[in-house]
Amino acid sequence: MLEKNTRPFIGCEAGYKEASAVIFGAGFDSTCSYRPGARFGPSTIRNESFGIETYSPYLDKDLSDIKVFDALDPELPMGSTEKALKIIGKYAKKVFDDGKMPIMLGGEHLVSLAAIKEAYSKYPDLRIVHFDAHIDFRDEYLGVKLSHSAVMRRAYELLGEGKIYQFGIRSGDRSEFEAAKGKTFTYLFDLKGVEKLKEMIGNAPVYFTVDLDVLDSSVFPGTGTPEAGGVSFNELLVATKEVRKLNVIGADVVELAPMLDQSGVSTATACKYLRELLLTIVK
Amino acid sequence: MLEKNTRPFIGCEAGYKEASAVIFGAGFDSTCSYRPGARFGPSTIRNESFGIETYSPYLDKDLSDIKVFDALDPELPMGSTEKALKIIGKYAKKVFDDGKMPIMLGGEHLVSLAAIKEAYSKYPDLRIVHFDAHIDFRDEYLGVKLSHSAVMRRAYELLGEGKIYQFGIRSGDRSEFEAAKGKTFTYLFDLKGVEKLKEMIGNAPVYFTVDLDVLDSSVFPGTGTPEAGGVSFNELLVATKEVRKLNVIGADVVELAPMLDQSGVSTATACKYLRELLLTIVK
Amino acid sequence: MLEKNTRPFIGCEAGYKEASAVIFGAGFDSTCSYRPGARFGPSTIRNESFGIETYSPYLDKDLSDIKVFDALDPELPMGSTEKALKIIGKYAKKVFDDGKMPIMLGGEHLVSLAAIKEAYSKYPDLRIVHFDAHIDFRDEYLGVKLSHSAVMRRAYELLGEGKIYQFGIRSGDRSEFEAAKGKTFTYLFDLKGVEKLKEMIGNAPVYFTVDLDVLDSSVFPGTGTPEAGGVSFNELLVATKEVRKLNVIGADVVELAPMLDQSGVSTATACKYLRELLLTIVK
Amino acid sequence: MLEKNTRPFIGCEAGYKEASAVIFGAGFDSTCSYRPGARFGPSTIRNESFGIETYSPYLDKDLSDIKVFDALDPELPMGSTEKALKIIGKYAKKVFDDGKMPIMLGGEHLVSLAAIKEAYSKYPDLRIVHFDAHIDFRDEYLGVKLSHSAVMRRAYELLGEGKIYQFGIRSGDRSEFEAAKGKTFTYLFDLKGVEKLKEMIGNAPVYFTVDLDVLDSSVFPGTGTPEAGGVSFNELLVATKEVRKLNVIGADVVELAPMLDQSGVSTATACKYLRELLLTIVK
Amino acid sequence: MLEKNTRPFIGCEAGYKEASAVIFGAGFDSTCSYRPGARFGPSTIRNESFGIETYSPYLDKDLSDIKVFDALDPELPMGSTEKALKIIGKYAKKVFDDGKMPIMLGGEHLVSLAAIKEAYSKYPDLRIVHFDAHIDFRDEYLGVKLSHSAVMRRAYELLGEGKIYQFGIRSGDRSEFEAAKGKTFTYLFDLKGVEKLKEMIGNAPVYFTVDLDVLDSSVFPGTGTPEAGGVSFNELLVATKEVRKLNVIGADVVELAPMLDQSGVSTATACKYLRELLLTIVK
Amino acid sequence: MLEKNTRPFIGCEAGYKEASAVIFGAGFDSTCSYRPGARFGPSTIRNESFGIETYSPYLDKDLSDIKVFDALDPELPMGSTEKALKIIGKYAKKVFDDGKMPIMLGGEHLVSLAAIKEAYSKYPDLRIVHFDAHIDFRDEYLGVKLSHSAVMRRAYELLGEGKIYQFGIRSGDRSEFEAAKGKTFTYLFDLKGVEKLKEMIGNAPVYFTVDLDVLDSSVFPGTGTPEAGGVSFNELLVATKEVRKLNVIGADVVELAPMLDQSGVSTATACKYLRELLLTIVK
Repeated sequence: MLEKNTRPFIGCEAGYKEASAVIFGAGFDSTCSYRPGARFGPSTIRNESFGIETYSPYLDKDLSDIKVFDALDPELPMGSTEKALKIIGKYAKKVFDDGKMPIMLGGEHLVSLAAIKEAYSKYPDLRIVHFDAHIDFRDEYLGVKLSHSAVMRRAYELLGEGKIYQFGIRSGDRSEFEAAKGKTFTYLFDLKGVEKLKEMIGNAPVYFTVDLDVLDSSVFPGTGTPEAGGVSFNELLVATKEVRKLNVIGADVVELAPMLDQSGVSTATACKYLRELLLTIVK
Repeated sequence: MLEKNTRPFIGCEAGYKEASAVIFGAGFDSTCSYRPGARFGPSTIRNESFGIETYSPYLDKDLSDIKVFDALDPELPMGSTEKALKIIGKYAKKVFDDGKMPIMLGGEHLVSLAAIKEAYSKYPDLRIVHFDAHIDFRDEYLGVKLSHSAVMRRAYELLGEGKIYQFGIRSGDRSEFEAAKGKTFTYLFDLKGVEKLKEMIGNAPVYFTVDLDVLDSSVFPGTGTPEAGGVSFNELLVATKEVRKLNVIGADVVELAPMLDQSGVSTATACKYLRELLLTIVK
Repeated sequence: MLEKNTRPFIGCEAGYKEASAVIFGAGFDSTCSYRPGARFGPSTIRNESFGIETYSPYLDKDLSDIKVFDALDPELPMGSTEKALKIIGKYAKKVFDDGKMPIMLGGEHLVSLAAIKEAYSKYPDLRIVHFDAHIDFRDEYLGVKLSHSAVMRRAYELLGEGKIYQFGIRSGDRSEFEAAKGKTFTYLFDLKGVEKLKEMIGNAPVYFTVDLDVLDSSVFPGTGTPEAGGVSFNELLVATKEVRKLNVIGADVVELAPMLDQSGVSTATACKYLRELLLTIVK
Repeated sequence: MLEKNTRPFIGCEAGYKEASAVIFGAGFDSTCSYRPGARFGPSTIRNESFGIETYSPYLDKDLSDIKVFDALDPELPMGSTEKALKIIGKYAKKVFDDGKMPIMLGGEHLVSLAAIKEAYSKYPDLRIVHFDAHIDFRDEYLGVKLSHSAVMRRAYELLGEGKIYQFGIRSGDRSEFEAAKGKTFTYLFDLKGVEKLKEMIGNAPVYFTVDLDVLDSSVFPGTGTPEAGGVSFNELLVATKEVRKLNVIGADVVELAPMLDQSGVSTATACKYLRELLLTIVK
Repeated sequence: MLEKNTRPFIGCEAGYKEASAVIFGAGFDSTCSYRPGARFGPSTIRNESFGIETYSPYLDKDLSDIKVFDALDPELPMGSTEKALKIIGKYAKKVFDDGKMPIMLGGEHLVSLAAIKEAYSKYPDLRIVHFDAHIDFRDEYLGVKLSHSAVMRRAYELLGEGKIYQFGIRSGDRSEFEAAKGKTFTYLFDLKGVEKLKEMIGNAPVYFTVDLDVLDSSVFPGTGTPEAGGVSFNELLVATKEVRKLNVIGADVVELAPMLDQSGVSTATACKYLRELLLTIVK
Repeated sequence: MLEKNTRPFIGCEAGYKEASAVIFGAGFDSTCSYRPGARFGPSTIRNESFGIETYSPYLDKDLSDIKVFDALDPELPMGSTEKALKIIGKYAKKVFDDGKMPIMLGGEHLVSLAAIKEAYSKYPDLRIVHFDAHIDFRDEYLGVKLSHSAVMRRAYELLGEGKIYQFGIRSGDRSEFEAAKGKTFTYLFDLKGVEKLKEMIGNAPVYFTVDLDVLDSSVFPGTGTPEAGGVSFNELLVATKEVRKLNVIGADVVELAPMLDQSGVSTATACKYLRELLLTIVK
């Protein structure tokens, strides 16, 4: 009765070996240029997950139907971006190497880069499906190349042209939009166009990265740079179901900043979305 | 100038005798399994009601056109569920016995059970129209039968099959959905279908219970278990107008949790909805 | 490197002389009947503006394409309404006199009256386009004529019949709606009808006043009297583009109350709207 | 059971006629130069008072031992300082005229002026005992004479030299300190010196005004201009007992600003202090 | 690297068998009469504990010097007081039976009763040392015997006269103080007198229960019923060192309510106190 | 009237040339291991400074009596510690080179290192007087040398033994305390001992660094790692006056984290302390 003391994300109680997917946190946020706090995203999602159910009436499916292990979070050296990405990369690599699907919880969006690098080294034909309010295509910021607003630029440099599909984009520097032209597929404002992805991508391996600020700022206020004019939760769910048709080999959900979520409503939304994502893409 | 010291919900200044409807609070929240605080719902709604107007441009009607008495709130013994329900039941019974319509303010959803019991004992053919994000059809929770997530199960046991009409439902255990099948009419996700109620129910007496978390969590963050993917305020208003066609004999509005409503926006929304509800169903 | 110490709204770094538009704050809120704090609107919008970009993907235009000077905020004597309005009026007058467009940041809605008076004295055929949740057409409140809920009544008395076009209105006393009949054009609930303005107004000079509570309370919780049932951010953007077709000679954006915006999401929305408004109406 | 709907400050349930003291609110805050919100002080103190007990172990006395009527709060026209003070003055006058002691709840400190005027017109030899962090001795602010930072200057002009005794003062303009010299007794930083009051004042009538920001800002954060370096709650209690030795004919407690009191701890402290004050000075 | 997923209170990483003390949570709060939320105390203390160090400069001792197991928290049926206490009691009993010291984290104060019962059944000569702002000696509340304000009355009925030593008491009904007279040792207002305990109690077994609201409300705002006029953190530390001289066989720390602790300062204080308590009383 | 748009810290309106001291912000916080947000310290202190007065009754001195220029804040690349420190260092160097005293506003404590380096290169006999709750003497954290908890270790490596005087220290790893022994003068828990500094240091140049968490967490909750058991505001003022006797050549005030300061009370305290510090040490 008293001897065990683990507390994973609700319904993710499989052992590591039997699991087909592995949740882990990448609670890093040092490069945020505006409001920090995404470092607390993973632990808060986990701690508050007992406020939701394991069952989805949207999918008529329960987390007990799949096998997910929650590895909790590595400690990360704040302020030391390269070291932090290295540690995150190791986690992602191990999960890939063990033939499982990583589901990473951010942290700021830059953490995706560490997982994408590992995914790319295993799947050289990798594509990225990217839901976000921000185009994240800066070249640098005050001379710094590794920044949350540069993550897709860095990913593009790795993967090459025509491999990144962006949806919901409604913010960024003019130079970012200009730079992305011809290099990525960028769909502005909403998630329309997701239904064409299967035709465009076919069975190529896909890393699916969801910056939760793609949601309207009314739906998801608890994030560093909330953006009005975004999609509803139901639109996000519908688009996520489209992504299920692709060959998703890894995913992440980033940019919940609990210190900015006084009512807890963004955390509850992140928990619910993580449940739906797991039930949608984990086999 | 100084001798009177009452402060009711705005525009509800009728005396008890002349009133056709009676507001009272049921500020109980001991069985919430997640975030408590709904106990402060009734007093906060009343205190903040002077921030809204008595007039509805939606209905072109004013609270001064109807007669409502606000009875404030009985003191309730927290942690002692049966005693609390008994006290609430007494209030509801007196209002029914005096030929008036009770409009109860929660509190957690379990408080509806006390009013429903009294309604049922007066109107044996009672129906329940239930707006909620949660199906509330647990059999028990850790061995406890009286819980806010079991309220519709208990109501079903009282009224029998086919008497409960649920709308907006988007959360619950798998076992709850399975148990409700064939016993209740359960409409998922939104309020569509409300317009068929008149045909289904005719003139049978109806108790109308509104868990405010049926609203999208962006619209109503200040509640214990907010649920993304819900309806808009305007959708709720339109559906409420449909309910007016039924023979409503009592109603409640539950689950505002002011401690989780730092911006006050959920309280303002609850106040506005209560005004619209009163203007819609009180004759 | 160290000698200059200005911090204007992002991208509004023109000198006064070269600027075609001038931002200034009117941080007054003494007549609010409910929750105060709009006095901090201008400074908070300015301080938090560095959280957004200067580029609009909606308009494919950047603040560096136009010339705006940010004059910061005059100190205003709280509690002394007439003196405060006089100071605000002086600011507006100087901007008009110098042939520039004032873009005033409230503060409560009454501050618009000071700018409208100056606009009217320069443009006797002035029209007002008014986006708001509230009709703001009280005659007086406890004997007081100058109040944020009376601002359009006072403006009507100045301009005469048929000069004020109101949109999004969903709240007010019955007496206000009755009084406005035949005197203003009042469109209830949403912004539909804006597209007819060009036909109705032609090239007459227009003062455009935006009370941000026209937005749904989920989109804009940080305001004194949030009102459920309002428009979305995208609907506001679309309607603002319609206003561009008119001959706008001045504008304001009022009623952000930062003390009620714990998550910062309303401030971010106000900043983004101000950017879009500037890019839309400043030539 | 249902017919009565009053909710006064806890334990203040006497009828008006039998009461020897009368609580009423003066929820005005329009002249605050910094953070507003004190308008909600009276209603919040009343609403939250049921979180404390009626019994004081400090005095071994219970509110049931005295007779106090709670008259709730007059509606006040925000932004119209003179009208608001007039209404407050009428309340105070009636209480004085009926031979009872007014205990007024602010509101900003300027509201004291209305009560002091009435006290002075009844008791021409009036003294003021003033606990505050701020000296409140401005001549004017932006040309305005009626301001919360000028209240003691205005009182001095009424009563004359040597009638005001200030304690705990630790903030103000240099000009205020210079102006007060020789006109008031001003004790800096703490409440030491209160024990000499009896000797100085004897049996002259005393109006006792307590600005709660005399407390250290750690003890009382929920106020418009919190000031570090103040007194502890126990020091305030001890000093208040000294005041009991004087001939107190009226009192007020001002400057709780509930919007700035997210934890509720300042409100709880204000409630407790009001209980202690009532038990100390009401006969 | 990935296979383990526990997260105990910082520094409490011993296995159950080797541990001499066992932390577990009793996150129950259904009987709170005022503001609930203490249910989240245990999980929040654990989650936020990584914000403090394992080393105490006060004691020059580190948590790595002792062996503590953190058993996390049993699920408890809210609203069902007797069942919840039974589950808590089972936890306490097992720890006692295994010859270890339980350190329980509340939750509301009533949870202490479950542990005290088990302690008493093992140690019939049990004494209670009780730090609290509230005397907690009600007989009943609205007919309910099991309530957080009755916990010491119930404990007295179990243990008999002269076994309970209360410190810091400054709040309660008059009837509670009268009832406690002659039955308990009740020290008002502060922790003076603790140094006499060794002489009074000698080597008798002691259960040490700390309601954190014994701290001044400035030091510990995040609790259901904060009380001004309490002790400082350093005074609490000094008194706790005195308790170390006694034969402490179990302890608890109760009444942190994280929902009321927006700044996180009460949680940080609770974590630090728990570290100091462990280093003080665990051998 | 409109052409100038600067808004410095209150009363710091001198031009750069005439100023004897220069305020600038170092809003960097990327290496915080726990709660971030100190990046907003400088701008928030400046924006809220108009809530205090320019006059100090403690010192009977006004900011108009001295000449201070407020240079606002350089933009800093978050996540790139070395680059950020380099930019900060350039600011400090210019101020030193121009013969003025820098008063830097943090940001996290690591920013002090940049200023200390410049001070040391100008004044090789430099001493550091350090007020803090934390000893900040880590060697590294997860392999990272530049961290806010290592700042004094790095400073020691620069300056050598016996040059750092620490006060108020009450938190840190055991290894930090052990490492500091014999290398620094470390006074635990409070600021006693400051009065011996003049004798110990004489006229050697002193850099004075104040981590505001030296204050008790009740006095200063708005900081990343608040620590109970600290000093009062008055104790800090008294100790600061002692420091005036030394030859202070530069100073900083760090670790205000406005996102954690919902009531604004820590910001108000930081503003007041900055005023007192300026009036104390600027000639």
